[in-house]
Parts: sequence; structure tokens; C-alpha cells
Amino acid sequence: MKDAETIHELMQDLGRKAKAAAQELAFAPSEAKTRALEAAADAVWARRDEIIAANAKDLDFGRDKGLSPAMMDRLMLDETRIQGICDGLRAVAAQDDPVGAVMAEWDRPTGLHIKRVRTPLGVIGVIYESRPNVTADAGALCLKSGNAVILRGGSESFHSSGAIHGCLVEGLKAAGLPADAIQLVPTRDRDAVRELLTMTDYVDVIVPRGGKGLVGLVQREARVPVFAHLEGIVHIYIDKAADPQKTMDVVLNAKTRRTGICGAAECLLIHRDALELGQAVIDALTAAGVEVRAGEGLAGSVPATEADWGTEYLDSIIAAKVVDDLDAAIDHIRTYSSSHTDAIMTEDDAAAARFFERIDSAILMRNASTQFADGGEFGMGAEIGIATGKMHARGPVGAEQLTSFKYIVEGDGTTRT
Amino acid sequence: MKDAETIHELMQDLGRKAKAAAQELAFAPSEAKTRALEAAADAVWARRDEIIAANAKDLDFGRDKGLSPAMMDRLMLDETRIQGICDGLRAVAAQDDPVGAVMAEWDRPTGLHIKRVRTPLGVIGVIYESRPNVTADAGALCLKSGNAVILRGGSESFHSSGAIHGCLVEGLKAAGLPADAIQLVPTRDRDAVRELLTMTDYVDVIVPRGGKGLVGLVQREARVPVFAHLEGIVHIYIDKAADPQKTMDVVLNAKTRRTGICGAAECLLIHRDALELGQAVIDALTAAGVEVRAGEGLAGSVPATEADWGTEYLDSIIAAKVVDDLDAAIDHIRTYSSSHTDAIMTEDDAAAARFFERIDSAILMRNASTQFADGGEFGMGAEIGIATGKMHARGPVGAEQLTSFKYIVEGDGTTRT
Repeated sequence: MKDAETIHELMQDLGRKAKAAAQELAFAPSEAKTRALEAAADAVWARRDEIIAANAKDLDFGRDKGLSPAMMDRLMLDETRIQGICDGLRAVAAQDDPVGAVMAEWDRPTGLHIKRVRTPLGVIGVIYESRPNVTADAGALCLKSGNAVILRGGSESFHSSGAIHGCLVEGLKAAGLPADAIQLVPTRDRDAVRELLTMTDYVDVIVPRGGKGLVGLVQREARVPVFAHLEGIVHIYIDKAADPQKTMDVVLNAKTRRTGICGAAECLLIHRDALELGQAVIDALTAAGVEVRAGEGLAGSVPATEADWGTEYLDSIIAAKVVDDLDAAIDHIRTYSSSHTDAIMTEDDAAAARFFERIDSAILMRNASTQFADGGEFGMGAEIGIATGKMHARGPVGAEQLTSFKYIVEGDGTTRT
Repeated sequence: MKDAETIHELMQDLGRKAKAAAQELAFAPSEAKTRALEAAADAVWARRDEIIAANAKDLDFGRDKGLSPAMMDRLMLDETRIQGICDGLRAVAAQDDPVGAVMAEWDRPTGLHIKRVRTPLGVIGVIYESRPNVTADAGALCLKSGNAVILRGGSESFHSSGAIHGCLVEGLKAAGLPADAIQLVPTRDRDAVRELLTMTDYVDVIVPRGGKGLVGLVQREARVPVFAHLEGIVHIYIDKAADPQKTMDVVLNAKTRRTGICGAAECLLIHRDALELGQAVIDALTAAGVEVRAGEGLAGSVPATEADWGTEYLDSIIAAKVVDDLDAAIDHIRTYSSSHTDAIMTEDDAAAARFFERIDSAILMRNASTQFADGGEFGMGAEIGIATGKMHARGPVGAEQLTSFKYIVEGDGTTRT
């Protein structure tokens, strides 16, 4: 443990180094970034025993701390998971480099030719919890998008993250890129997080990866922009024009495929005229082991209470409610949604259009499982998270969303009259 | 004057109303927005006597306050200027509506069809100084982009802005749009500004329009995102491969066309091998009445001091300096530029490419006058300002930059495996 003054100095130093590295990275060739990520993958695999030994220390720490079995599982690394980390690094290496891409170009009557070109954002701070693989995933995505990154892992994964970080630095060096492009906060001290959140001179954006507690803290305390979602309170509305089979398939998938991800359905809204279908879906959910908290007029596992609307269970639980019509569903979603992902089941184009137009969530779906709310499934490559804010990045945050742009204007001695 | 508690309540009330209006505006038909702006233009012209009478009160207030002639001129409205306001409203009315535009769409192997669609940002706060026309310009652009706006004019233009605002509301009502879509803070109390800057529950972005004092205050105090530039410290680098005639034309235009705008050149960097051309340009500037603060090796009006590097004169003054090579110019610009607009004069493509790659200003130009740094000149229609930040909007901020987006995902009973 270091005292506050020392932590402040330490973080300022990381910030300065990150900013300097970011200036270099901004024009690093694509091939160098690709080579760095491939070399990092090689290093992770070559040093897997070292990583597993570091992970053993973290597991001991976790056991002493009394972590839950679920958290211990998230923390644990074995050869299979290390292989997964390597695969992830290689996948990002193989992705397109967004930097330098021409987003648009046009000519002006004055003779000017204007291009809008992608640039890195600068320095990204990533704050995460127990999963040590985030060290590699987030580090890789920031590097691919030409940004320097300051990683702050969970205290539980301190040694594992450190070992993985060492491999990333090895990759950077092998490719002739600045080692400070990917830095890991070298202390477990929690003051470091507060410093990172307020380093407006050095940090351009913060991405928190973790539960509601972490994200809420970051959103409250950050003095720099944040790409995040606090919760995924995901609704599926069964319209009166819903197709029964599609609805059955989609709702079951959206709730049960994986219950712990942010795209998992948490609340079912059923049009009064689709009550029979809605009840059949509830019965199927119940049969699949889901606890259905059912509103008036519906038979579920237990009755819903007011507290069930707007709750993210992240578990095998779903709320269900009858609504009078499409507009009542829209009202409910506007009131309780977290603007992450909401869906409508309908064969009626006009109903879908009204739903899409009047709800402002990052992702709106029709006749598709909300579990598709994912950068990979969107075809964006790796994602660093999903954002529900309206500034800059929204929805899945991939390499492209980690960029800004500039205008390149070319004339031929052109003057303004 | 009202007390702080009352101001807080007043602003919270404006915020709530703006947010409610924004929800309606998000799906307002383009035609309604166009009609509202045309009706507002009609109202401004019909009520021009009333506006001029209100302006007379402001001019009295300004005289009593001892405003400078330049500020009095900015404040003054006559029929010609009111015609300009009407023309501005009609021009924005005629622009394309960015909301609902499909920015990209693609299919996925899973059968999903994904669209990224433009949406309004929500609520925009605009804080400006003495020019009353900003009331109409900013109100119109926010409406066009589907955003509700809270306008806070300068205390000098209180009555003029109020009269113009009345016409905007008349337009909204004529088109059946919520009157709260464009609100004007109805008090001169400065506490209202501080409230506006911290209303994170209601305001999505703040746009300050004015001098460095106002913008600096907003950037320091705001707890919501800000689209702005603090200064336009605009550099022009004369490369050794610069064309003499183009350079002469461009530099003179960039400095002298209008000296008070943010795209006006403020510093000339001259490659050691282009000294003769550089000196000829300085002589021409001097002949045109520009004070040239000249660094070592150059003959100007007065010698430059360290304080001249990184100074925005907004006047008939320019700094000039000899640099050893392109990289020294890049270093100087990285150190002193405000990331607004910087330019290179060169016939050498490689030099231009290096300049574009290594400097991260919102706008980079080659062989063109920096006075083109303007949304209208870029073909973006009206602009609300120029932003130098890297988040969301950058460069000229037009209607498109005042939008966010959402994803529309359509399947056919599609589930994730």
C-alpha cells in the first residue's frame, strides 16, 4: 500500500507516458500493430506456465478472501482458457485497422477536396473486475484502434493480469512499438481508480467492465467521458400480430440461452389480444425452469410486484405483464428500460416501425433474440463492451467506436472570397 | 433577481420540459420541423418592429453598461439583420433532416439485418453572448436535428433574444410541435448558467458560443459533454516545396480576409530552405497592414517573444518563425496548436502526408486558406460552432453532428445458438 500522494504521482506518471505513447501510436503502421498482437499471443502461449503460476497466487488470495464459487471460476485460468486468450489476440490482430480509413470524401464548388479520416481517440482507461482475460482483450482492442491504454484490473486478478500484461509488452517491443502503449496499474490500491477517473489531462475515455457496482461508481465519479451500460433491463413485447412459433423460439432463447449476460431478456410485455400466446410462452419458460413473476391476468411462478418492473435479474427469472396495446408497451419500456436492448415480436410492419421510432434504446430488435446484442454477432469483431449513452459510441463498442476523426482539406492555392 | 433556490427550481423545470419535448421531437415528421422553421421566419419578419423595439431596450442597457462599440455593433438589429435571421431560418428549413437517415446497413450470416439509424441527441443547452441572432440560428439547428434546446443568451441581448424566441415558439405552435422544444432561460441571473452546466439528468450536451472567457468557464464547470473550441491558434507551415504564388495568395487570405474569426491564421512557420519566399510573404503581410512578430532570421514589424507562440490574436497580427524542417514544424504545432485548424503549403505529397498523419487537429489543410474552416464552406449547412474535442463531434458542428444513432435489428424468429 502506498499513500495518497504517491498514488497520485504514480497515476500522473502513467498518464504522461500513455499520452506520449498515444502520439506515436496515432501513426503506427497497421502491420506493426498486427505484429505486436501476434507476438503477444505467442508470448502468452510460451509463458502459459508462468501465467498459471501467477493465477495460482490469485486463486489463493481469492480463497482467503472468501470469493464465491462463481467469482473463483471467473478468476481461474487453465490451458484451455489461455488458448482462448491467444485466439482472442489473434482475432483482433486479423481485424481491419480502423485508423486512417476514409469515412467520407467530397468536392466543393470552391475546388476544395475534403476527406473525413478516422483517428484514434488517444488514451483509454479500462477498469475491470475479476476476469484476467480482459487484460488481453481490452489491451488488444485499444492497440488495434491506435489508442494507448491504462488497464486497471481487479485486485483478485492482480498477478494473473500482471503476467498477461508482461506478454503484451513483449509483443509491443517485438514490433517496435512503445511499451507504454499498454500499461497496467501496478498497485491494488483503490485510490488509483479514483485518480484514473479524474485524469482529464491524460485520459480521453473510461471503459468500465464489470457489475453494476463498478459501473455505477465509474459513472458517478468520472470526470472524463465513459462508455458503459449500467444495466441491461431488456424487454420483449409480444404484439397482437406476433407469430406464435417465432415468439416461442425467440423468448425462450432470449431468456434461457445464457441468463447472466446483459442481452438476456428480463421482462415480457404481452398485448391483451395475444394473451393465449403469452400464457403459452410463460408456461414454456416455467417448464424450462424459469421463475416467472407474473402480473395480473397471467399465471406464473409467483405474482409480480411493482419492484419487478425495471429489475435486471441476470438469473433464471423473468417478469411478465399484460399491456393494453402497443403504446402501453412503449410507455412501459420508456419508463423502465435501461436503453440497452428492447425487442418486439410482430408480423405487423407498422407496429414495428412505431416501436423503432418511439423507443430510444441503443439496440432495437424485431423477431430476433436479444441475446444477439453483441459486437461479434453484429459483425464488428471484438467488443470492449456495450454503451447505452448517446455520445460518440452507442451499442457494441468495437475498434471503430474507439476512434475519432479529423478533416483533411486539399486545395490548390485556394482562397476564400 | 431571484434567489438561488428559485433559480434551481426554474432550471429544473426547464430541464423537465425540454426532456419531455425531446421525446416528442425524436419522431416528429421532417415536414413539421420544416414548417415550424418557415413559420418562425414569417413571424420574425412580421414582428420585426417589435424585435427592433426590444433591441432598443438592449442597446440602452448596453450603453448604460458602457459596452465597447464592437459589442454594441454585435448587439444591434436593423431590418437588414432581421432579414438575415429570416434567411438563416429558411436555409436551415431547406436542409436535409438528419434524423432517421440510415448510416449503414448490412446482413449477418445468422439471417439478421442490421441498420444504424440517426437519432437526435436529446436536449442541447446553448450558452451565448451578445449576438441576438444566435437565438434563431441555434434554435433552428437544434430543431432540425430533432433536439430540444435550452437557450441562454447574453444579458445584453435579453429583450432581443426574448422577442426572437417568441417567433420561434409561434413557428413551433403553427406546426403542431411542442412549444417547449425551444426554450429561452427567462432570467439574466448568472446562477442559471451554472445550473444549466450541471443538469446531467436533463441536458445531453452544452454548446457555448462566444469568447475564450465564456468557453473556458463552460469547459471547466460543465458536468455534461461540451462541443466547443477554446481558441483557434491556427498555423500555416511553408514547406521547402511550397509554391510561391499559392503561398502568397493563401497566407494573405488566411490572415487578412477576416482577422476576428477562429480560422484566421495566427502563426507562420517557414522552412529554412524557403526563407526567401517566407520573407516575401512577411513583406506582403506588412504591406497589407499586418503587424508581423518575427522570430530570429526574419524581418518583421517587431521581434517575436516566447509569448507569441500559441497566441490567438484575432487581430491584424501574426507571429512568424523559421523552422529547420517539416518535423520541427510538426513539433511546434503539436506544442502550440489548439487543435482547431493547421495548414501546410507544399507541392510535395510525402510532406503533406506526414503533416496530415502526425498532427491531430480537427481540420488539416494543404494549399488552402484556413478561413475555409467553416461548416457552410464544408457543405454541411448551418453550423452551431467548431469543436476541437475528440468525442462525438469534431470540426464544424452541423445538424448531423447534433445526432446520435441506434441499431435496428430485424430477424425472422432468429435465435442465437
